[in-house]
Amino acid sequence: MTVYLDNASTTKPCKESAEAVMLALTENYGNPSSLHKMGLNAQLAVDSARKSIATALGCEAECIYFTSGATESNNLAIRGAVSAHGRRNKKIIVSAVEHASVSETMDSLENQGYEVVRISPKNGVFDAGDFVREADENTCLISMMLVNNETGHILPVKEVFSAVKRRFPHIITHCDCVQGFMKLLVKASSLGADLISLSGHKIHAVKGVGALYIKKGVRINPIISGGKQEKGIRSGTESVPLIAGFGSAVEKLASTIAQRYERAYELKAFLLDKLSGIEEVTVNSPADGSPYIINISMQRRSEIMLHYLEQNGIYVSSGSACSKGAQSGVLAQFGVNQKDSDSALRVSIGCETTEAELEFFVEKLKEGIENIRT
Amino acid sequence: MTVYLDNASTTKPCKESAEAVMLALTENYGNPSSLHKMGLNAQLAVDSARKSIATALGCEAECIYFTSGATESNNLAIRGAVSAHGRRNKKIIVSAVEHASVSETMDSLENQGYEVVRISPKNGVFDAGDFVREADENTCLISMMLVNNETGHILPVKEVFSAVKRRFPHIITHCDCVQGFMKLLVKASSLGADLISLSGHKIHAVKGVGALYIKKGVRINPIISGGKQEKGIRSGTESVPLIAGFGSAVEKLASTIAQRYERAYELKAFLLDKLSGIEEVTVNSPADGSPYIINISMQRRSEIMLHYLEQNGIYVSSGSACSKGAQSGVLAQFGVNQKDSDSALRVSIGCETTEAELEFFVEKLKEGIENIRT
Repeated sequence: MTVYLDNASTTKPCKESAEAVMLALTENYGNPSSLHKMGLNAQLAVDSARKSIATALGCEAECIYFTSGATESNNLAIRGAVSAHGRRNKKIIVSAVEHASVSETMDSLENQGYEVVRISPKNGVFDAGDFVREADENTCLISMMLVNNETGHILPVKEVFSAVKRRFPHIITHCDCVQGFMKLLVKASSLGADLISLSGHKIHAVKGVGALYIKKGVRINPIISGGKQEKGIRSGTESVPLIAGFGSAVEKLASTIAQRYERAYELKAFLLDKLSGIEEVTVNSPADGSPYIINISMQRRSEIMLHYLEQNGIYVSSGSACSKGAQSGVLAQFGVNQKDSDSALRVSIGCETTEAELEFFVEKLKEGIENIRT
Repeated sequence: MTVYLDNASTTKPCKESAEAVMLALTENYGNPSSLHKMGLNAQLAVDSARKSIATALGCEAECIYFTSGATESNNLAIRGAVSAHGRRNKKIIVSAVEHASVSETMDSLENQGYEVVRISPKNGVFDAGDFVREADENTCLISMMLVNNETGHILPVKEVFSAVKRRFPHIITHCDCVQGFMKLLVKASSLGADLISLSGHKIHAVKGVGALYIKKGVRINPIISGGKQEKGIRSGTESVPLIAGFGSAVEKLASTIAQRYERAYELKAFLLDKLSGIEEVTVNSPADGSPYIINISMQRRSEIMLHYLEQNGIYVSSGSACSKGAQSGVLAQFGVNQKDSDSALRVSIGCETTEAELEFFVEKLKEGIENIRT
């Protein structure tokens, strides 16, 4: 029995996505830049996926640019915005709990001479005012994720971006929406973001494709140059199969966001109820966070528990997958002490997660707590 | 009947590659960065592909870094080398016939203050001495493609790189090997390159994956930062399916490079023989170029002939696909006059090309010449 509860790391591609990939592999294999019919057919598949994603995000198709994944989208958004708008305005505002693809990029810009202001939550909660007060004439960019990938905390993106834009319309607003897209009701206009990063493989499409929303009229510079695909924003032959698969996954999920949210909410409540009987367990995720991510601590080292669970066919994460288990400091930002950080586990819910799977997880977690020494 | 003669633009994924993609899609869908067994299995698939590609290139597996394609590989090689080594040495040497992903990147570096020296061929032939004479203490990088993508010309990479390295070992050497890998007998050591760019979709793998060879001890900076995948050189969750498919395609092709070269050579000779009877046709490719690419002119506008041919199920290119048919100036560099450039067609041979297909192409080309006004 395989109980896959690591859906915030990556998901199993859905049938529709896999089929779209295969169709583009075996039949529609032209190069979208070729001028003949096979090129045109490939281009049509790319544009159809672009339209599906745009519809889901509530924007026009021309605002969606395909990339190789969310890490590239975040780099393109941040480096591209700073390159276009940061010549004189050297200040960047960012939350202190971002994914490595944002936080490492900020570190790199700091080394290049930018002033990076990192805003931390207080007692586990972000105060929108802390971001807004930092915004000034010299700020070129503000970047905030919508849903934290380790804990599920939802950041006050809309509140911050709208307040910042009211006072300083020149500041570019970027949102890493990877853990929110197709899970919460996310629309480009309601976020108030100029730039939004999306990932395919977190929503049952294939690893290797993502997208960046760029609001009409907002200018960023490319970080990869060449044949001027994606209107020059992202050169390189488009991965038609992965893009088509991304579009198919979004099409499939777009009509069920509310139902799946309800379902994840139920499952989270079910899990928390079962966990409440275990003395050693504390919950690091907030009650009002994304129901798809539940971070807990259980007084046993994460790695040991993780391996105990996998021996029983259960797959969860310690921290985020992207950092290969190394602690990112995000839990500390949210007020989790070092001991609880060392024993943190992230359970992340997918489209096919069931109560029975969560019950099995809790049973094996209990066993693990009994068998593993503190 | 479909006669696909546009294999230098992109190729149909082979069965082995498609199967490897599907296996990773449906079963081996873990995140290589996850610490559990599903993560490990995904990592093993990536490492197995890395080994296959390294073996084919005659290098150690640790020298191969996966990217989203050759455009990214070229950007990473050039921008990464210049970022690491170009602080004081501001001069870059490059051939004047590079793919857009190199030439546009050079333009961008020129705008940032680098001195870019572009070396042209004389009477259609490159003189290695022209490159070597430009190399000096202030040079940080020299970049040359192995096989020109529009004409099949083979550049004297080995001769240039070894002469440059003898005099100035500090100069980083980069070779865009996209149209050479798995077609000519290319080994990392025999090229004498520090950096080699490879593409998947030109060799019957899937669009969206490529690799960069980095010689041991050579340091470049990443252009995309984040979770430090690929030893920090290329952050972002690896596209396990595409990487596995890339590895499978290379494994399949690696043992038949010499036979396929012979076969392409025969097919090129066959085609040139058939074309020799058509008065209007001139051949822009050199006799000693790659046999996989045959560029001709035929006194009728390329786009019109291209559409005439596609109505008969024949797919070729005008210029390179990557520039959407816009002329790159490469043919002019090789001494082709404007009129012949306007009527250029590129025929590119794949693993499954047959004499019958080429004969059909020649027949329809003749018809086209008769039917299309000059």
